[in-house]
Amino acid sequence: MTSFEKVVYQTDKMKHVCVGLDTDPTRIPLKLQQGNDPIFTFNKEIIDATLDGAAAYKLNFAFYESHGIDGISTLKRTVDYIKSKDEQIIIIGDAKRGDIGNTSKMYAEAIFNEFGFDCSTLAPYMGKDSLDPFFEFQDKLNFVLVLTSNKGSEDFEKLILESGKPLYKEVLSRIKTWYPSSSLGTVFGATNIENLKEDLSELSGTTVLVPGVGAQGGSAEQVTKLFYTYGHKRFLINSSRNIIFASNGVDFSERAAQELIKLNTEIKQALV
Amino acid sequence: MTSFEKVVYQTDKMKHVCVGLDTDPTRIPLKLQQGNDPIFTFNKEIIDATLDGAAAYKLNFAFYESHGIDGISTLKRTVDYIKSKDEQIIIIGDAKRGDIGNTSKMYAEAIFNEFGFDCSTLAPYMGKDSLDPFFEFQDKLNFVLVLTSNKGSEDFEKLILESGKPLYKEVLSRIKTWYPSSSLGTVFGATNIENLKEDLSELSGTTVLVPGVGAQGGSAEQVTKLFYTYGHKRFLINSSRNIIFASNGVDFSERAAQELIKLNTEIKQALV
Repeated sequence: MTSFEKVVYQTDKMKHVCVGLDTDPTRIPLKLQQGNDPIFTFNKEIIDATLDGAAAYKLNFAFYESHGIDGISTLKRTVDYIKSKDEQIIIIGDAKRGDIGNTSKMYAEAIFNEFGFDCSTLAPYMGKDSLDPFFEFQDKLNFVLVLTSNKGSEDFEKLILESGKPLYKEVLSRIKTWYPSSSLGTVFGATNIENLKEDLSELSGTTVLVPGVGAQGGSAEQVTKLFYTYGHKRFLINSSRNIIFASNGVDFSERAAQELIKLNTEIKQALV
Repeated sequence: MTSFEKVVYQTDKMKHVCVGLDTDPTRIPLKLQQGNDPIFTFNKEIIDATLDGAAAYKLNFAFYESHGIDGISTLKRTVDYIKSKDEQIIIIGDAKRGDIGNTSKMYAEAIFNEFGFDCSTLAPYMGKDSLDPFFEFQDKLNFVLVLTSNKGSEDFEKLILESGKPLYKEVLSRIKTWYPSSSLGTVFGATNIENLKEDLSELSGTTVLVPGVGAQGGSAEQVTKLFYTYGHKRFLINSSRNIIFASNGVDFSERAAQELIKLNTEIKQALV
């Protein structure tokens, strides 16, 4: 199954939630902190509790790399564990890569071959030849940063070009000419609901990863309504902290499952 | 010694070469490929041979991450080895980071605390709050991508804004208002010698990392002449493949040392 087929498979079932495994060890239950590889144990319990309702899992490299070699080992164990439980689920390696060609090639090999992710996230600043090596893996899918959910998106992404277009729109229209729908994903923050509305027709033909729901302020219901109104089904709403840290007590995995159900209900209600 | 002090210390001695340890295992001598941790063994021999002439070493994460956990272990071993040999040398962790605040914080902790690098490289697309967590480490130095040495720099970095400025110049002027000289580095490709000439006054007050010399086409002599003409001493010229893969025979470390001497001679000749 290609990554694109996984996206179609999940979203056709109206599964749109991507659970972000941004596992901060200082926020995991004390009980788990004493064991061997507590981050993996935490991830495992979260995965078991959320597998039914999730379309995807996203592992942000930062939260693993900050623990050095052990963290990278936990990252790999977590990917392997998800795959062993469900081969149709989408696994996103979130490292926001972008480097000169021969280097991007190494990163692409790392993320797809060595770690076994289905999808990557990419930063576009360095241009086409920094993205190409990832798109050469035609059965994979890459989410290119277009408009992000943080305050800093005002700094450069929204700068107006001499054409009158903001930079992020130029990025969007160029990547659409460079890469086929079956490989092209975009990151478009949900905190910018007005921009999302404005740009939905442009986003069509891409699989959209929407961060910024929950802790960062966006609403899953609004986002879903918008996408479905435009007949755009290939989108994933990422939620990290709101799900995985819903509780730091012994009930953390149950509470995570409940939060996911709540989010899925919000999404379904948007369609009524 | 802060990272800034290391830069001053090295460049005051007219040491400007950063040796890029982009160690591709398919290009290292056969003899080494059979041993345990061949990439580390290769790096160690290169470091021993080049330590006298180098100002800095740059480790590109791609070349280590693509070997998974073992690669990350090699990355850390290499950093530790350089430190054990010379505490004044600058060690750059090249991962071109940039993510939302809480994530960038984790990356900054990884690169500075966990791996022990003196400097990072950062991608500016996501704006100030994606860069800030790195600059909170005030004794470290961060090289922000301004104009890169690849062909793709034409795609977005050189787009003209409504102000008439290209994007990369806007990035440069903003980061200069955001961060102090003692922490601020810039990446400015040597393949764009005309741009470098044009922008040198703007680059002042930053430590400039210049890639693109050698395999990518720029000339160390031209670059050095330009910087010194403008009285700008804090710059590092990166050379990776041309030095470390000067030979793939048993004489690889000797040849690497010779290439470094050649580059240092070019730099010194530029001052005559």
